[in-house]
Amino acid sequence: MQTLSVELGDRSYPIFIGSGLLQQARLQPYIKGNQVMLVSNTTVAPLYKELVRNGLSQFELDEVILPDGEAYKDMQHLNLIFDQLLASRHNRTTTLIALGGGVIGDMTGFAAACYQRGVNFIQLPTTLLSQVDSSVGGKTGVNHPAGKNMIGAFHQPVAVIADTAVLQTLPDSELSAGLAEVIKYGLIYDAAFFDWLEKNARALRDKDEQALAYAIYRSCEIKAELVAQDERESGVRALLNLGHTFGHAIETHAGYGQWLHGEAVAAGTVMAADLSCRMGWISRADVDRIERLFKAAGLPVKPPQDMTPERFRTLMSVDKKVMDGRLRLVLLSSIGQAVVTEQFEQAALMQTLNGGI
Amino acid sequence: MQTLSVELGDRSYPIFIGSGLLQQARLQPYIKGNQVMLVSNTTVAPLYKELVRNGLSQFELDEVILPDGEAYKDMQHLNLIFDQLLASRHNRTTTLIALGGGVIGDMTGFAAACYQRGVNFIQLPTTLLSQVDSSVGGKTGVNHPAGKNMIGAFHQPVAVIADTAVLQTLPDSELSAGLAEVIKYGLIYDAAFFDWLEKNARALRDKDEQALAYAIYRSCEIKAELVAQDERESGVRALLNLGHTFGHAIETHAGYGQWLHGEAVAAGTVMAADLSCRMGWISRADVDRIERLFKAAGLPVKPPQDMTPERFRTLMSVDKKVMDGRLRLVLLSSIGQAVVTEQFEQAALMQTLNGGI
Repeated sequence: MQTLSVELGDRSYPIFIGSGLLQQARLQPYIKGNQVMLVSNTTVAPLYKELVRNGLSQFELDEVILPDGEAYKDMQHLNLIFDQLLASRHNRTTTLIALGGGVIGDMTGFAAACYQRGVNFIQLPTTLLSQVDSSVGGKTGVNHPAGKNMIGAFHQPVAVIADTAVLQTLPDSELSAGLAEVIKYGLIYDAAFFDWLEKNARALRDKDEQALAYAIYRSCEIKAELVAQDERESGVRALLNLGHTFGHAIETHAGYGQWLHGEAVAAGTVMAADLSCRMGWISRADVDRIERLFKAAGLPVKPPQDMTPERFRTLMSVDKKVMDGRLRLVLLSSIGQAVVTEQFEQAALMQTLNGGI
Repeated sequence: MQTLSVELGDRSYPIFIGSGLLQQARLQPYIKGNQVMLVSNTTVAPLYKELVRNGLSQFELDEVILPDGEAYKDMQHLNLIFDQLLASRHNRTTTLIALGGGVIGDMTGFAAACYQRGVNFIQLPTTLLSQVDSSVGGKTGVNHPAGKNMIGAFHQPVAVIADTAVLQTLPDSELSAGLAEVIKYGLIYDAAFFDWLEKNARALRDKDEQALAYAIYRSCEIKAELVAQDERESGVRALLNLGHTFGHAIETHAGYGQWLHGEAVAAGTVMAADLSCRMGWISRADVDRIERLFKAAGLPVKPPQDMTPERFRTLMSVDKKVMDGRLRLVLLSSIGQAVVTEQFEQAALMQTLNGGI
């Protein structure tokens, strides 16, 4: 087992990464009261719920099982968590446990942020994407019909426990979606890690446990460092959004759940790389290299064919990264280094949105 | 005009108290972007909306007018604020302005806490209750059918502007409801202020502007001091809940909006005083004095006749002040001093719930 710490003063918390951790009942030290609400979904609960419950027999334990999918990450389903908490009379010392992927983690975290103005929660991420990204850093929330994650809060978990063994039951497409964010960490922060990913793409797709454990560890380490520097995303943390402004537009256009988040991020990141190249900051060979790695990870590298530049511009203008009406993008200054900038040419952006035409 | 400061480090903010402040366009220094969303209700908007809008002509200004009343302080109406923010494409630099009483302030503050994971907001409280209580301290939220303020956040405003002139249009019952919280400050913190209130109850009910301005100033000063010591209510801030555990039970029993919050707090505070007396901490003469002042302020001093002790116990057990299943109450050790305690006799509590029988 490997351990990392997200350093945020009195909101610091550990991340544990290892095989079989769900079975080892590591939760008790992070539960302060006697009430626990387990939140999971209809896909993950049948596989792992009992494992988790077995380690919690000394607590007053209730559960909410939500339907699986991004389509249910909304206020209506968030309310089901509040309803259950109140029906079971959970008080301010309760602990919520998120057992599932990013949707469950984001919703459970947001419910914890708002229930009685804030209670504790623990992340048990069961997808690669949530293990390397959404479970770490305290971003929580739900979608609004007009945009992803528009309603939410910064609320840090008290612990994150990433059991790599559960990835063996993860569908291949979801593993690939997680790899999109892993590749992102290499691109924005660590050229050597990007090289390592090029060499190990095959092993990762084959779910080699050692390769996965290293990829998760290094990804969480980079994310923890950026989050510790900038918890509420007023600066450097925004680099984590590489590919996300384009990606969110793709997800919204396609309809929630039609493209996996990681798939949209992959295509969006290639667009960000393309624009970076048009600005003269990276070479066309770099863009090709990036595109090749995403393909090797089983990911799309182009947006949906029916998405016009006008559609992109409309959807991107409601993105949270738009400050004072000006579009800010994360672009690459090299493989391993990114910048947040408004300094790109509109003509270059239009070419990127046009698919290079 | 008088100015106070709530000292919370980088979340510190000023409270301005004075006559005619809404007309003086004091808002601009607290608006950082170019977007503003004014939130008000159908009662207050026709009276004061244009005054406020006049001072904001240089901003991109949108508005949401909600129906008036505690019955609408719910998720469904909160969503109307999000819908409008997204329809008008407000970004992270937007500022929400709450023009109204406690319901508008709590909902606008909670919307600001959650919109894009947190934007700024300004409180323009238009009732005595919200001027002396809910606009200061950053408690925001909405009700759930199972309990008041169960869903919410701590989110501090960037400024509070209390215009005492608007109280001249406030219905008498609402003025009285605000006085309940004013009396509370005397009871928990300042015996001399309690004496002053006994002498000035008549002037306050007659809406004497000078008396009101002093009552608001001293109330905000006490609240600011307690909030600065304990922003998230893990300790001394809980003293502000004197009468509120009983009061919330009364409000829930009667149905939201049937009893004004201040009315329920008045009856609840007399119950807390009664229990304090039964524990031997204050005299029966003190209880009579407290009851007399609430009556002089035009407030009820008994719960609804149809409320049984069992009903009280059921409703109080879901109150946020219940820690680990044990009921904690704010009780008086003297007029001017309160304690948060679990150390009261169940028999004494039952007698209080029984109305002394």
